[in-house]
Amino acid sequence: MNKLKNDTFLRALLRQPTEHTPIWLMRQAGRYLPEYCETRRRAGNFMNLCKNPRMACEVTLQPLARYDLDAAILFSDILTVPDAMGLGLYFAEGEGPKFERPLREEWEIRNLAAPDPGVELRYVMDAVAEIRRALDNSVPLIGFSGSPFTLACYMIEGGASDDFRTIKSMLYDRPDLLHHVLAVNAEAVTAYLNAQIECGAQAVMIFDTWGGTLSQRAYKEFSLAYMQRIVEGLTREHGGARIPSIVFTKGGGQWLEDITSIGCDAVGLDWTTDIGAARRRVGDKVALQGNLDPMTLFAQPDKIAQEACAILDAFGPGSGHVFNLGHGISQFTPPEHVAALVNAVHEHSRKLRQT
Amino acid sequence: MNKLKNDTFLRALLRQPTEHTPIWLMRQAGRYLPEYCETRRRAGNFMNLCKNPRMACEVTLQPLARYDLDAAILFSDILTVPDAMGLGLYFAEGEGPKFERPLREEWEIRNLAAPDPGVELRYVMDAVAEIRRALDNSVPLIGFSGSPFTLACYMIEGGASDDFRTIKSMLYDRPDLLHHVLAVNAEAVTAYLNAQIECGAQAVMIFDTWGGTLSQRAYKEFSLAYMQRIVEGLTREHGGARIPSIVFTKGGGQWLEDITSIGCDAVGLDWTTDIGAARRRVGDKVALQGNLDPMTLFAQPDKIAQEACAILDAFGPGSGHVFNLGHGISQFTPPEHVAALVNAVHEHSRKLRQT
Repeated sequence: MNKLKNDTFLRALLRQPTEHTPIWLMRQAGRYLPEYCETRRRAGNFMNLCKNPRMACEVTLQPLARYDLDAAILFSDILTVPDAMGLGLYFAEGEGPKFERPLREEWEIRNLAAPDPGVELRYVMDAVAEIRRALDNSVPLIGFSGSPFTLACYMIEGGASDDFRTIKSMLYDRPDLLHHVLAVNAEAVTAYLNAQIECGAQAVMIFDTWGGTLSQRAYKEFSLAYMQRIVEGLTREHGGARIPSIVFTKGGGQWLEDITSIGCDAVGLDWTTDIGAARRRVGDKVALQGNLDPMTLFAQPDKIAQEACAILDAFGPGSGHVFNLGHGISQFTPPEHVAALVNAVHEHSRKLRQT
Repeated sequence: MNKLKNDTFLRALLRQPTEHTPIWLMRQAGRYLPEYCETRRRAGNFMNLCKNPRMACEVTLQPLARYDLDAAILFSDILTVPDAMGLGLYFAEGEGPKFERPLREEWEIRNLAAPDPGVELRYVMDAVAEIRRALDNSVPLIGFSGSPFTLACYMIEGGASDDFRTIKSMLYDRPDLLHHVLAVNAEAVTAYLNAQIECGAQAVMIFDTWGGTLSQRAYKEFSLAYMQRIVEGLTREHGGARIPSIVFTKGGGQWLEDITSIGCDAVGLDWTTDIGAARRRVGDKVALQGNLDPMTLFAQPDKIAQEACAILDAFGPGSGHVFNLGHGISQFTPPEHVAALVNAVHEHSRKLRQT
């Protein structure tokens, strides 16, 4: 195994001491970067970009060229798995992800099967391998997937929803059907993440974008239980290195104790949770990742630094913190403001360790 | 003072014993009712309906004719106050509320002034008085307003927003300007709610729809502090009766202790918070209102009853619970499902009191 030049991110996830607090940003390879827009233009559309390993590698590395980030994250979409199940993922301009063939009938649900990540998701595995080669052990590469419940939201609603009426009707009226979808999704995501690890992902993250729209009882039964299945099935070690896992439920701040209990190494926090209080609640069970409001990046650099330092101070001394936004970076973010954030986090966290 | 035939709602807000758990539904006079759609059609548009006291009275009473609800709520909009400030509220079809003249310039913010509720908001006061007469002391009438921060979101963004980029940029870069808007809003809302009480509102509720999009620190400084000013300025007693106040921050489940401390009588909960855990956290300081997921109403009646009973059981024995949804009822709700909910809450809560 080759040694990473900067393994701060991995050590922080395992709550080992680090010289500074590592930082990466959800959606760091994205539309706020002009070079990303240029590559995407060349690709023709978003799915072409995801499915072309060379281009996916190119955009994955773009933010690392600009900023002193401590991790790379695979450029892909959270919905590749249901696309590989045959639902036909596409992106209508300005409308977010949609499926051509959402799950409407009971027989469609009963026929659902986990794809073979080495076949239907080969393009993702090729991208992971290509990015690892290109990174040349500079920083670790994060693999990821959407959570079973979040995937099911899109698979059943057919796209984004502001009330999740279709999936919630199923949840209350036909929980057996929803449980079937979720079980297939959990099996598929486990195989998908393990294949990413096999191809070189050095940490994995599960994005539960919509679990936070559930009641606590429904969250535990329909979202968290299936993320637990995944975490329990993940490859723990690869090439002699521990592969940490991060679970992030947007809007899950009320359920931190529950999330912490499923065996993941780190828990992502959105910006509504005070990270100091969160740390007291989770104790030494997990590391925490987060949690700056992405809208903070629209303020002037001195105000951005001030808000970032407040989060570092709230977390307090000791290890186990990966700095991040509380949600994906906005496409309208001024790129130079990101540099101000990264520098503030590195500088202030180094200072904190000296006192 | 005339005696109410059914004062269960008011007693529950004051944590006094009741024979059953009272229930009303946020947005109970709304588009899911065909009779509402008919009146709205006659009015021509939503704002005409709000500004015509006779029609506002008519739609306020419609859900009470159908269901055995324990309270009426003034039919109006949360944004009447900024409209009265001259910002020009209008509703573009299928797009939600908008302002013709959002706050863009510093001088516009500096010129902002609280309206006189007896003049610019006379139509609301006339509606309150007319509804009280029509209710004839059957059930209590709830008055309401949007919270200062929620009003500011629309006033500054100009309409609904999915990221609140404009107001949050102001929050981080020019907190002095935002504080000015919020101070004027708090003064205006206090006068507005007190005028509603003067005209007959028997309880008041503050809707903080967007406070939950803030970090905890920002929430306390920019939303909760101004709701506290309002609560402190509210008329506590009118015509010999105590006027209870309810504060509802959607997504505020993490900050219950903070909300409870501002002096309101009851706290609204959305459906993401377990009401049993919430009750243990707030103790005997406030009553709780909530908290069924509005999407539950798309399930079959027996499943609706089951979910409602689970909430009543989670709250447990003793008083201090007003049953409600965790957010406004969906326009697509089958009206007969609401009857199933109301009956289940009344029946099961009566049974609970007998054991």
